[in-house]
Amino acid sequence: MPAYKAPLRDMRYVLYDVMGGDDLTSLPGYEDFTRDTLDAVLEEAAKICEQVLQPLNRSGDEEGCAYENGVVRTPKGFKQAYDTFRDGGWTSIACDPAFGGQGVPAALNTLVEEMICSANLSFGMYPGLSHGAYVALHGYGSDELKQAYLPKLVDGTWSGTMCLTEPHCGTDLGLMRTKAVPQEDGSYKITGTKTFISAGEHDLTENIVHLVLAKIPGGPKGIKGVSLFLVPKFLPDAEGRPGPRNGVRCGSIEHKMGIKASATCVMNFDDAQGWLIGQPHKGMQAMFAMMNAERLAVGVQGLGLAESAYQGAVTYAKERLQGRSLSGVKNPDKPADPLIVHPDIRRMLLTQRAYIEGGRALAIWAAKALDTAKKHPDPAERSKAEDFIAIVTPVIKAFLTDTGYEATNLGVQVFGGHGYIRDHGMEQFIRDGRIAQIYEGANGIQALDLVGRKMPAHAGRYLRTVFHPISDYIEANKSNADLADLIGPLGKAFGRLQQATLHVARVGMARPDEAGAAASDYLRLFGLTTLAYLWARMAEVSLPQADDPFHKAKVLTARFYMERLLPQTGALLSTILAGGKTMMAFEEAAF
Amino acid sequence: MPAYKAPLRDMRYVLYDVMGGDDLTSLPGYEDFTRDTLDAVLEEAAKICEQVLQPLNRSGDEEGCAYENGVVRTPKGFKQAYDTFRDGGWTSIACDPAFGGQGVPAALNTLVEEMICSANLSFGMYPGLSHGAYVALHGYGSDELKQAYLPKLVDGTWSGTMCLTEPHCGTDLGLMRTKAVPQEDGSYKITGTKTFISAGEHDLTENIVHLVLAKIPGGPKGIKGVSLFLVPKFLPDAEGRPGPRNGVRCGSIEHKMGIKASATCVMNFDDAQGWLIGQPHKGMQAMFAMMNAERLAVGVQGLGLAESAYQGAVTYAKERLQGRSLSGVKNPDKPADPLIVHPDIRRMLLTQRAYIEGGRALAIWAAKALDTAKKHPDPAERSKAEDFIAIVTPVIKAFLTDTGYEATNLGVQVFGGHGYIRDHGMEQFIRDGRIAQIYEGANGIQALDLVGRKMPAHAGRYLRTVFHPISDYIEANKSNADLADLIGPLGKAFGRLQQATLHVARVGMARPDEAGAAASDYLRLFGLTTLAYLWARMAEVSLPQADDPFHKAKVLTARFYMERLLPQTGALLSTILAGGKTMMAFEEAAF
Repeated sequence: MPAYKAPLRDMRYVLYDVMGGDDLTSLPGYEDFTRDTLDAVLEEAAKICEQVLQPLNRSGDEEGCAYENGVVRTPKGFKQAYDTFRDGGWTSIACDPAFGGQGVPAALNTLVEEMICSANLSFGMYPGLSHGAYVALHGYGSDELKQAYLPKLVDGTWSGTMCLTEPHCGTDLGLMRTKAVPQEDGSYKITGTKTFISAGEHDLTENIVHLVLAKIPGGPKGIKGVSLFLVPKFLPDAEGRPGPRNGVRCGSIEHKMGIKASATCVMNFDDAQGWLIGQPHKGMQAMFAMMNAERLAVGVQGLGLAESAYQGAVTYAKERLQGRSLSGVKNPDKPADPLIVHPDIRRMLLTQRAYIEGGRALAIWAAKALDTAKKHPDPAERSKAEDFIAIVTPVIKAFLTDTGYEATNLGVQVFGGHGYIRDHGMEQFIRDGRIAQIYEGANGIQALDLVGRKMPAHAGRYLRTVFHPISDYIEANKSNADLADLIGPLGKAFGRLQQATLHVARVGMARPDEAGAAASDYLRLFGLTTLAYLWARMAEVSLPQADDPFHKAKVLTARFYMERLLPQTGALLSTILAGGKTMMAFEEAAF
Repeated sequence: MPAYKAPLRDMRYVLYDVMGGDDLTSLPGYEDFTRDTLDAVLEEAAKICEQVLQPLNRSGDEEGCAYENGVVRTPKGFKQAYDTFRDGGWTSIACDPAFGGQGVPAALNTLVEEMICSANLSFGMYPGLSHGAYVALHGYGSDELKQAYLPKLVDGTWSGTMCLTEPHCGTDLGLMRTKAVPQEDGSYKITGTKTFISAGEHDLTENIVHLVLAKIPGGPKGIKGVSLFLVPKFLPDAEGRPGPRNGVRCGSIEHKMGIKASATCVMNFDDAQGWLIGQPHKGMQAMFAMMNAERLAVGVQGLGLAESAYQGAVTYAKERLQGRSLSGVKNPDKPADPLIVHPDIRRMLLTQRAYIEGGRALAIWAAKALDTAKKHPDPAERSKAEDFIAIVTPVIKAFLTDTGYEATNLGVQVFGGHGYIRDHGMEQFIRDGRIAQIYEGANGIQALDLVGRKMPAHAGRYLRTVFHPISDYIEANKSNADLADLIGPLGKAFGRLQQATLHVARVGMARPDEAGAAASDYLRLFGLTTLAYLWARMAEVSLPQADDPFHKAKVLTARFYMERLLPQTGALLSTILAGGKTMMAFEEAAF
């Protein structure tokens, strides 16, 4: 099984050298987050991820969760690991100090999340979902609910879930059937069945707080009649301790391709007592607060798995002796050369690196914007940061999970036949990573969100938060000879992105199916071009220090990215311009 | 679980309408393979695949093979299914009538193999490997060995394996350690350990015939000292029945990502009695006879799984109601429209179709060449067909398994969250398909075979068997207005392929690492362009009948292929021309 070492130097490089993380201290409330503090958290996170979570990753996959009679048992060691995780304060790091949280910057938390996903994605689902519930409750709950539940969610003695999906409705939540009937005491009786509920039932915490979407009878039809409720597994007693069992029960768990140690539950609500969060029929607002946070987090899942797959592949490529270099024997004392001498192996490893390190820079760029949006004293800065988050959220979710999945597959390919054997742990990254392209809005839905909602919003205002930095950067560096081999390809890709944007805006306005036909390719073009910009910036940072092998590697990876990955943008522009006529002309019966 | 229906109309279309399969009867020995006969075989194959093999696909995956004390038990139902398969004559269809086979054309057998892979890839591994052993023994065995073993392999009462890989040597067979010590009676004593031996041990047949690569002590070093041996599990007695147990034993089976009902065995040979096949130290020759047949078969595995994934996805896309069409409600009486109204869903389904149907045409083109190479009275025709097979073998193996894997992933994506749940059977296609990119020579090795051996061979003679038909076709149709929207893109892609070929030939000659750096992208460019040619031909066949929805769909899929998939060729040419300098400059320690 590949050992995981948190890539701390790479993380610090992106956080400080590329994204200027030292300036976080200038934000009100972040004064204490000096580089020393940030480094200390990263190092502690690395320890628990490497030493506690990662060793349970394979065994958790093998054993999976067990369901019996409404009870779910997580795999051996998960409960102890969770206790260590909770005792270490990791459930609370990104939470409001008013409720016991540590309130660390999102930029830092994102790196911690990456480590957790690299080490043990299934484990990470439990605190991850809980944090989603925290976000929605914190943003929209009444003071009373917040006082009663948030401290427990923050300290991790209780966990949370998000109950959205029903058997017949996933993407289209307007089809929802779960009912919430108002009671005289102001609470509601919730009845219905929810599926695909991650962490819906488990043995890690003493209580589970479900946030449940349901319809209040008589409300508006469809998505506009959906409200959000808090439904605890055990109703808190007068002292706030878990009291009587509520009418919610796990009916079964799913047998899945991967993330097997994460319990994916069917939850049956039968006159369960619940309390409204926010306004009636306005449940989608709170849901989207949670969902947007989760979409960024899912992008980071793709990144984290890619990093682990890379680490496994590169170790194997250096150790495995097989065949000889095409350019002459490299290892004359041994019967064969290591795999890493082969160009095709290097192509695979560098593709992984280029997507991972570029993706990490994008994730931290977005996370710093979250910090700005939350803490900056200037409302204009906050608003600009929010615009940026709005446009990059679907890109991070889809592009980082797509490229992350490609990277996990390359990891297995480098391993050859051994990659297919479960003992080596490489194929698990594929199986675990496949879901990230689907949940929290399938990647096709992200693409529609990008072209249909985010791109046209406010006459392109969101879009400009990405396009302006890129065009300014190209303009500022067009005469920079050191960067010429990077700015050229970046400029070309950006031109393609602009052309595609105009095309989609123009044809999509008149014929929405045309926007739909372009959406997935447009999102990928957007992601590739954004990463090209970030790679140019990383090369700029590293060029003056290119005597150092670490920085030389950054410069070469930037060049590799421009030469070998960015050319996809040309094909994507072609397919976008080709339009949707042919696919829509295909008759349904002929499929 | 998706039900499988053999796509007989599509198969007949490719075989007869596109590839002129009716002319098989003109080959000596194939006189009886009229359309009626071929159709009858296809229909019978469809029945057993749909009714016997496919129903065991999910249960076989769930149960897997069991190992205990040297014995391997296949999943429930496999033995009965194998008996039905054998009794139906399916183990013998592609075998020499001199040994009890039916000697059907390869063009027909390829379609039967596709059906088996669609229905139950794990099951198909048993007769598939056995056929590989048959090919090597038939081609290189002594008359005595052939008489003793071939009839049993052909009628399926015994099965065969190919024992190549050892723990430390996969791709690089020169590192092999298994020894074969000559005995006075002309036999050899074989000692060593082989891994990843598909069907190495199982309960389907009364005997298992291992073809084993080993080194005779004192022979040449490396790959030139490798010989091939026949080592039966039970030594035949005087009547040819399984007699005393030989010194070969299964030490364990692998736990794998997929193809779980196929036993992947560690085989321990301990002074096992074996007999030389062919000349000493010339084992690789027979091995490659087998390997080339297997590589084509593995390409067809990718195709077969893609077809099943497509069938599952398209059924779901028509049934699942979720959301509304972007261009207005299509299903006003229902709460939502079916998924298939969405352009992004159509993009995925048509991508699957375009790769599947194009891939099938390529596979049948190659299979017909196999028939020509075997049966044509004119040696020049036979030789030309052999050249063609040589060049397309690595392309079919790698390109059809890569695009097949993409298609299985698209199938899961269309299904959304339900695709990730094992019950629905869609994720199994991904897990089963992932190995096809690896075994029988990883796809990177196929690419090296293409650029390093096949492309330059005889000053491009192999290459011309593909390039000439394409350039002739473009030339012949350049003024064909009906095909203009297809010939244009085809010509452009072909120009790119020619340019890439010249580049790789030129730089690769001087610097082999440059050929290595280009190899995988070159193979994909080759595959994409070849499929474009085949799609143009299919459109040409179907255009005059485009009133028929079946043929209209072909024309539209051809257009979709040119518009949405072929543009990748531009990006591939760029990455090929970018060369390998950057990746080779990356220092090993910096990875």
